Amino acid sequence: MAEIKYEIKKTLGVLSESPKGWKKELNLISWNGKKEKYDLREWDPEHVKMGKGVTFTSEELRVLRDLLNDMNL
Amino acid sequence: MAEIKYEIKKTLGVLSESPKGWKKELNLISWNGKKEKYDLREWDPEHVKMGKGVTFTSEELRVLRDLLNDMNL
Repeated sequence: MAEIKYEIKKTLGVLSESPKGWKKELNLISWNGKKEKYDLREWDPEHVKMGKGVTFTSEELRVLRDLLNDMNL
Repeated sequence: MAEIKYEIKKTLGVLSESPKGWKKELNLISWNGKKEKYDLREWDPEHVKMGKGVTFTSEELRVLRDLLNDMNL
């Protein structure tokens, strides 16, 4: 697989941490030098290994926010 | 790869739709017959093909909700 370059521009928050120290995080990440996107995935403690994740535009995060606010969580 | 069984118990919302009809969705999904989890990923129009995604507990979604509410989206 081709190498993926990424730069974590900003860590916005941590949703949880596993016993092994992996954290589920919301970050602002630039992938392959492109404009940064919101990104939700798990990371190892050193931010070197990552799990599968999803990227979002700010519009998608707004929809998600409104959706979560309407749920009985 | 081993076959993955899944059952979408409830579609909670759609964040966006691509030109090809793939939708970024928040669902409640049972994977391999286990207890359902919240799940955020892209799906094709027939809910047969899926993209990479992230699963969440309700506690993680509560943290995410509070995080999004504190952001200027």
